[in-house]
Amino acid sequence: MQSRYFTINEHPQGLPTRELFQLEALELPALADGEVLIRNSWLSVDPYMRGRMDGVTTYIEPFTLGEPLDGAAVGEVIESRSARFNAGDKVRHMGGWRDIAQLPAEQVEPLPEFDVPEQAYLGVLGMPGTTAWVGLNVIADMQDGDNVLVSAASGAVGSLAVQLAKAKGGTVVGIAGDQHKLDWLESKGIKAVSYKGKNARELSAALKEACPEGFDVYYENVGGDCLEAALDNLRVGARIAVCGMIARYNDDAPAAGPGNLAMLLIRRARMQGFIVFDHWEHHVDFVNEFGPRVASGEIDYQETVMNGLESLPDAFLGLFSGGNQGKMLVKL
Amino acid sequence: MQSRYFTINEHPQGLPTRELFQLEALELPALADGEVLIRNSWLSVDPYMRGRMDGVTTYIEPFTLGEPLDGAAVGEVIESRSARFNAGDKVRHMGGWRDIAQLPAEQVEPLPEFDVPEQAYLGVLGMPGTTAWVGLNVIADMQDGDNVLVSAASGAVGSLAVQLAKAKGGTVVGIAGDQHKLDWLESKGIKAVSYKGKNARELSAALKEACPEGFDVYYENVGGDCLEAALDNLRVGARIAVCGMIARYNDDAPAAGPGNLAMLLIRRARMQGFIVFDHWEHHVDFVNEFGPRVASGEIDYQETVMNGLESLPDAFLGLFSGGNQGKMLVKL
Repeated sequence: MQSRYFTINEHPQGLPTRELFQLEALELPALADGEVLIRNSWLSVDPYMRGRMDGVTTYIEPFTLGEPLDGAAVGEVIESRSARFNAGDKVRHMGGWRDIAQLPAEQVEPLPEFDVPEQAYLGVLGMPGTTAWVGLNVIADMQDGDNVLVSAASGAVGSLAVQLAKAKGGTVVGIAGDQHKLDWLESKGIKAVSYKGKNARELSAALKEACPEGFDVYYENVGGDCLEAALDNLRVGARIAVCGMIARYNDDAPAAGPGNLAMLLIRRARMQGFIVFDHWEHHVDFVNEFGPRVASGEIDYQETVMNGLESLPDAFLGLFSGGNQGKMLVKL
Repeated sequence: MQSRYFTINEHPQGLPTRELFQLEALELPALADGEVLIRNSWLSVDPYMRGRMDGVTTYIEPFTLGEPLDGAAVGEVIESRSARFNAGDKVRHMGGWRDIAQLPAEQVEPLPEFDVPEQAYLGVLGMPGTTAWVGLNVIADMQDGDNVLVSAASGAVGSLAVQLAKAKGGTVVGIAGDQHKLDWLESKGIKAVSYKGKNARELSAALKEACPEGFDVYYENVGGDCLEAALDNLRVGARIAVCGMIARYNDDAPAAGPGNLAMLLIRRARMQGFIVFDHWEHHVDFVNEFGPRVASGEIDYQETVMNGLESLPDAFLGLFSGGNQGKMLVKL
């Protein structure tokens, strides 16, 4: 059995080019005891993967040059030498960026049986959904009625964060770019603010207009001007959950930070970075609570789907140009 | 009875000049029922007062132009129309920046009776000491053995923070400027790092050399390059207590923030601003615990004393040029 996979042969500087990604193939060995063979049907691309391309350990191991990239994927077991899985089982695992994955069974988990499309376990009921929930509830300690600001509010994580926040009652404001993303936010009762054509000061003024009382919680996915504008609009005792700073992931050199960090002092605010994998103990509870709400349609999740293994690099690069609404996925 | 006091008649831009401060006098009215008259013996000048000169409400009300400035002071009751105080009582209150204060008795507190000089209640056993304690223990949740970094480590707050941290066991590093401050830190078993002549990158390298394992806690008094260098040297799960950012208090316009804020994410770190007045419920316990340790000489506190009411503006301005070691005080 052959596996086709993407790899990189050098560490990118700045925004990667399409040419960085090499499609390769290898002949898989026979399954060892305890291993399973999986035909992937859905592959995830996520902003955090950019950090793994730099060759330095940050909060996760870097990718190895010349080896298959990896990431979350959903697929079907086609051969098993483990008692835990049979051919035909639907599973989730980290052997993504390839069509066929060969993995030890202990690195593979069966999909829960909610009435949702299988790719939901890569988005709303996967890492992005859990990230939205942990950031709001564990890191930002969101309380009923809190005013919440979310950047990248129509992204995989942000589009769930705004809905989870909205359900708890306060004013929820989402920052996004394109008109169709703003429209989607407004359709969910979220006040939508566009960052396009605005510097930090103008964005700050727009946030103030959307929520004059200020924010108790800021769910940070972007950094840069969004952070600076948010810092201006914090209420006393505000909490900032730093999930990502995608505005900076492709910077060649460090860009200056916000000039108004002293707002943390003036507003006695807290700003905390987190990685969902540190809080994965909440994942099962999250899925059990939200699985039925996703199945019933109560929670609206967006997907942007590209087709075919060859589209993986474009899907990944689209994350940095606002090319996705909701979860970016590749369907095989 | 006449009271001589300092006031300001305009809001300063940038670093105030000596001429901003006007010495005035007023004839005090007869004491009303419930009031006391106090002859001040020690006056406090503190960095937070700069923020009160801008005419905008931040975390504390701004000074009123033309009215007496205020701040912490220690003195002796010379006349009382309150059952709580008698002439001769030693007291602490907020009617500083003047020689004679007339106040309602409920705004005045008697000095505790530890065997310490009375001005200690403006420093090591006053607001600065409580600030050091709250920042380390409440905000940064310092644990035994934590490695701790303190900026402005020979200042009123920093010089106590390093000693409180050192008593809990880990490596403690203090950032300061002048050689005599560095020497004092080393004499207390603190690793001293000079910021002088170093940019953020060089300061970061010096901190790495002083504590290669990185810091669990950063006690932030300065901002600017100190913050940037500290962010580079955080351990996973680090906590930053933002007590002050004196490097920025006199900026005319916002200066850019650190370019490496994403370290909060990479190290899953928390950064929290605080104002000691929000946590004043800890003050009495703090004084009762630390009063005996100060009296016994176990805790070494530094003072920089200027003499006479007229020296108040110079004492205050000295805070921004590194003119003080430990608590800056004016003795009347």
